[in-house]
Amino acid sequence: MKTEGRNAVRELLKTGKEIEKILMEKGAQGSLSVLFAEARKRNVRVQFVSREVLDKESADKRHQGVIAFVADYEYYDLEDLIAEKKSEKGGFIVLCDGIEDVHNLGSIIRVAECAGADGVVIPKVGSASVTESVIRISAGAAEHMKVAKETNLNVAIEKLQKAGYWVYALEAGGEDIYKENFSGNVALVVGGEDSGVKRLTKEKCDKVLSLPLMGKVNSLNASVALGIAAYEVVRNRLK
Amino acid sequence: MKTEGRNAVRELLKTGKEIEKILMEKGAQGSLSVLFAEARKRNVRVQFVSREVLDKESADKRHQGVIAFVADYEYYDLEDLIAEKKSEKGGFIVLCDGIEDVHNLGSIIRVAECAGADGVVIPKVGSASVTESVIRISAGAAEHMKVAKETNLNVAIEKLQKAGYWVYALEAGGEDIYKENFSGNVALVVGGEDSGVKRLTKEKCDKVLSLPLMGKVNSLNASVALGIAAYEVVRNRLK
Repeated sequence: MKTEGRNAVRELLKTGKEIEKILMEKGAQGSLSVLFAEARKRNVRVQFVSREVLDKESADKRHQGVIAFVADYEYYDLEDLIAEKKSEKGGFIVLCDGIEDVHNLGSIIRVAECAGADGVVIPKVGSASVTESVIRISAGAAEHMKVAKETNLNVAIEKLQKAGYWVYALEAGGEDIYKENFSGNVALVVGGEDSGVKRLTKEKCDKVLSLPLMGKVNSLNASVALGIAAYEVVRNRLK
Repeated sequence: MKTEGRNAVRELLKTGKEIEKILMEKGAQGSLSVLFAEARKRNVRVQFVSREVLDKESADKRHQGVIAFVADYEYYDLEDLIAEKKSEKGGFIVLCDGIEDVHNLGSIIRVAECAGADGVVIPKVGSASVTESVIRISAGAAEHMKVAKETNLNVAIEKLQKAGYWVYALEAGGEDIYKENFSGNVALVVGGEDSGVKRLTKEKCDKVLSLPLMGKVNSLNASVALGIAAYEVVRNRLK
């Protein structure tokens, strides 16, 4: 698998992951030469090539002069995410229900990482996977975040509930998010742009939470809605 | 100017704006036929055409079977935004400092609209403008939101301060956003993906506010960061 773009490769270099090689544009300057120094420090082989070679290797032509070759993205098990518990205040896991758009998945992983979540769960069917584009869009956050691919999201919710998590669906028509204090283990379920959280999934959840919408447009983008909700968890835990 | 995509055209139809005509894909079903009924109700002329014609008229090939033709996007003056004051708690204006990406600008306008802001200010130079893509990405929010194009962002900040606004820059290294109660008139300045809020702009602001970052990736996407901050304003005003 390839990781493309300066931010994404910089974040990749910070992890302990094995990097096969890095292709870099000839005449690297500025932030590229900083990346080169980082790669040298980690004994990663760097090959200088022309822009044409990078364009050819690039999946989406947004390599910004650098592409790293790594082993395929390694998914974790839900149990690994449950065991992670970065915060002493409790676990914090994000579940994606039908996020088919790579932009949305990348943004969601970035938001989850910034909010200190332990991991992100995606279903095996009907979801974008962690591809090179998702890693780039996540600004490299996908390198630091444990992502689990589960066969059935509703089974994952049951497992989380058994492990002591409160599972909240983010969706219109639910309870006021600002009344929730998010103590203990928290899981947030975010739905796709058009479909939202599916009815059966919503019924599995302990509670449906909603953000107030003060305008005429009746929905926020999935990653923005998750960002606001995830930072409610952060705000309550910092208190 | 053209407005493309089902959400964007639906929002456009809700406004009182003059629509020259709507091109719709032949054999319209589902949400397209709902749009057709809406257009009929408003006496807007609808022309049924082939997908090929729509593809040819489309700016970014994401028309979803519908394109509306309207007069050019009409910008407002900063004074109009100041006069708007949707909330009895005070004015609420968002300023964009170097948001060059149409995706980011569209997302920012959508977030601002959902959070009940009175308007969005963009500078004349070094910023994306409100194009068809921006309107589509904003899910139509740009149709309901007053956008002002100002020659100089720092002059706009001074005007806002004279009108009794507290102007906050959203940027790393500032004060804890959760300590702020956002009473009175509020303006939030959000910066571009790489550059952030410019130094001179930041100096003009009354305060720099930061979100806590709990992970290893050191920044949130501009529209997500604005979403979290704007909803802090919402939360404080709902108290």
